[in-house]
Amino acid sequence: MNYNEKSLKMHEQNKGKVEVISKIAVKNRDDLSIAYTPGVAEPCKKIYENTDNVYRYTSKGNLVAVVSDGTAVLGLGDIGPEAAMPVMEGKAILFKEFAGIDAFPICLDTKDTDEIIKTVKYLAPTFGGINLEDISAPRCFEIEKRLKEELNIPVFHDDQHGTAIVVLAGLLNALKVVNKNLEKAKIVINGAGSAGISICKLLLLAGGKNIVMCDKKGALVEDAEWMNEAQKRIAKVTNRNFEEGTIKDIIKEKDVFIGVSGPNVLNTEMVSTMNNDSIVFAMANPSPEIMPNEAKRGGARVVATGRSDFPNQINNVLVFPGIFRGALDARASDITEEMKIAAAKAISSIVTDEELNEDYIIPEAFNKKVVSVVSSEVEKVARKTGISRE
Amino acid sequence: MNYNEKSLKMHEQNKGKVEVISKIAVKNRDDLSIAYTPGVAEPCKKIYENTDNVYRYTSKGNLVAVVSDGTAVLGLGDIGPEAAMPVMEGKAILFKEFAGIDAFPICLDTKDTDEIIKTVKYLAPTFGGINLEDISAPRCFEIEKRLKEELNIPVFHDDQHGTAIVVLAGLLNALKVVNKNLEKAKIVINGAGSAGISICKLLLLAGGKNIVMCDKKGALVEDAEWMNEAQKRIAKVTNRNFEEGTIKDIIKEKDVFIGVSGPNVLNTEMVSTMNNDSIVFAMANPSPEIMPNEAKRGGARVVATGRSDFPNQINNVLVFPGIFRGALDARASDITEEMKIAAAKAISSIVTDEELNEDYIIPEAFNKKVVSVVSSEVEKVARKTGISRE
Repeated sequence: MNYNEKSLKMHEQNKGKVEVISKIAVKNRDDLSIAYTPGVAEPCKKIYENTDNVYRYTSKGNLVAVVSDGTAVLGLGDIGPEAAMPVMEGKAILFKEFAGIDAFPICLDTKDTDEIIKTVKYLAPTFGGINLEDISAPRCFEIEKRLKEELNIPVFHDDQHGTAIVVLAGLLNALKVVNKNLEKAKIVINGAGSAGISICKLLLLAGGKNIVMCDKKGALVEDAEWMNEAQKRIAKVTNRNFEEGTIKDIIKEKDVFIGVSGPNVLNTEMVSTMNNDSIVFAMANPSPEIMPNEAKRGGARVVATGRSDFPNQINNVLVFPGIFRGALDARASDITEEMKIAAAKAISSIVTDEELNEDYIIPEAFNKKVVSVVSSEVEKVARKTGISRE
Repeated sequence: MNYNEKSLKMHEQNKGKVEVISKIAVKNRDDLSIAYTPGVAEPCKKIYENTDNVYRYTSKGNLVAVVSDGTAVLGLGDIGPEAAMPVMEGKAILFKEFAGIDAFPICLDTKDTDEIIKTVKYLAPTFGGINLEDISAPRCFEIEKRLKEELNIPVFHDDQHGTAIVVLAGLLNALKVVNKNLEKAKIVINGAGSAGISICKLLLLAGGKNIVMCDKKGALVEDAEWMNEAQKRIAKVTNRNFEEGTIKDIIKEKDVFIGVSGPNVLNTEMVSTMNNDSIVFAMANPSPEIMPNEAKRGGARVVATGRSDFPNQINNVLVFPGIFRGALDARASDITEEMKIAAAKAISSIVTDEELNEDYIIPEAFNKKVVSVVSSEVEKVARKTGISRE
């Protein structure tokens, strides 16, 4: 039985994956009087006196909403809020299993940018953080941007930043393996959607200087007319040599290929035109841009994919549990660029210099150290940079 | 240590009361591939093919949102969404403890009627039912009415209907004790807010014919100008003798007093002006309209309150777990008047004729039979009346 059949059966048997339970027993009148009326009026009053007490007397501080409108779910696209539920429930239980965070799936029956923003703002009193998930570009940019501005709890679009952070973590170690550095490395990112642009931004912020972004229509070059707004903005700070052409042309003499595009956009010959000791992150799921053995035949030294059946899985389960754990523990008002870079460095630091090699640039998903190291580094940076509200 | 102190301590120690857990273990790559990618795509596809499959493969069918805007919380009033959290969390855990329903607190940062309606509609894909809680009148009427019309899942404002149902349950048995019947009984309801009006409507529907409603300004009489819209509507179908005056006048020669008003609005002398074998439901919390011993001194045969330290506690924890359990089990599209009356009769049926007496008209909150009897009667009626969507 393959994963699809097993998954279908498991979902049917359990009727979904999330369950809401009580932290305390309510078995008699005394319990009831403490958990509910009349006793419950007391914590209510304390919070009414000082709203900050909501963190002291309620679950808010450990609750994260996993919010989607179902428009960009996995590789399935715009399948609607109901069909998105299994993914959002899945995400929610990963928050709990990996980081002890109580996360709840919220699948919204609207695709309107303003309505989504308003709805999340209305929901905010209940939650300590908002994880946006599988919302299609370009709406996801606007939604995240405005929610970050208008809410005083962390808002994080995992498809953008989770992926970006784990790519940076993997890339830092991959560059170490081949003895190159981020500042000098020539990088091409293939796929200029929300994930690709977010990876690009974080690599720039971390010190990357030679980055070209590519989409189906070719390299993003300043002033090209076919680009959308987000692409136009990123084109102003990348591709400073104004390279033109498709990925086949652009990949020549690059040190790093980062793919968040689709299956088979790369072949052995194209990889062979890259610089020596090249790095290929082929992260399209489930079929990567190129299979690892073909990339290696083309001369790639380090190959990573999104899949668990090859070495070097670039999996954002390494990121979101720890970054939210750290942000919640610091009671951060935001998840900042500094916190993201701290998370990436924390992840790459888990692979020691002795362990580091071509087939082990990134810790495995179930490495227990990840959450604790990431969360403590993120919390530290949040407190140091004044993002903590405690 | 009293309940207030105990409650405060318990809330602080546990940091709230709700926890979101996984129904399944996710301990290795296989688990991850089944609960999340790539396997999870399969239930997503099935739901995309047929939205109804959301009940088959997700938690929706057992999830209830406990929604409040924090405007009418307990006796505390408009304390805001954050301060309402302890109550909504309390309600959520009672759903779980009493009926195995996974309920989640949603405290909304808006008091605008249209915005609340829109928000709940946007949230609906995630939930199998909506429990509205502690939303002030008259907005609560409009909000519930429109959500009932526009959503195909049960919507239930517990402050109105939960209270009404348990009052009807208690009253049916109290009338049996004194050998009177609902059709002939002369009833005064004191307190013409959302709970009072809702009680009145359900009593009318169940066969009550002689009902007068009273508020601080006196009896609701058709065409009195001081009444709000909801009061004007109810005044057209009650008080057909056009009685005027305050509760002191109106209570004379009544068989039943039902109070959802405030402390001490009744005294022994006023009760003594009622008919023989009178029934007094003094449900203001925590201080009733009259203490039971004083009501008895005035000649009341059956006295009920909202408190657990006196006999005959009128507690809506007898209602909402069972009525939602039944509605969810039938996959009902609504909670109808028939279902409410079925719930009331189910509750009163639990007290057998042998057990029934002045001090035992209603089962206790922790009586295990209640949820199963109420839910199965409600489910039966839902299926019989075509409300079930299965």
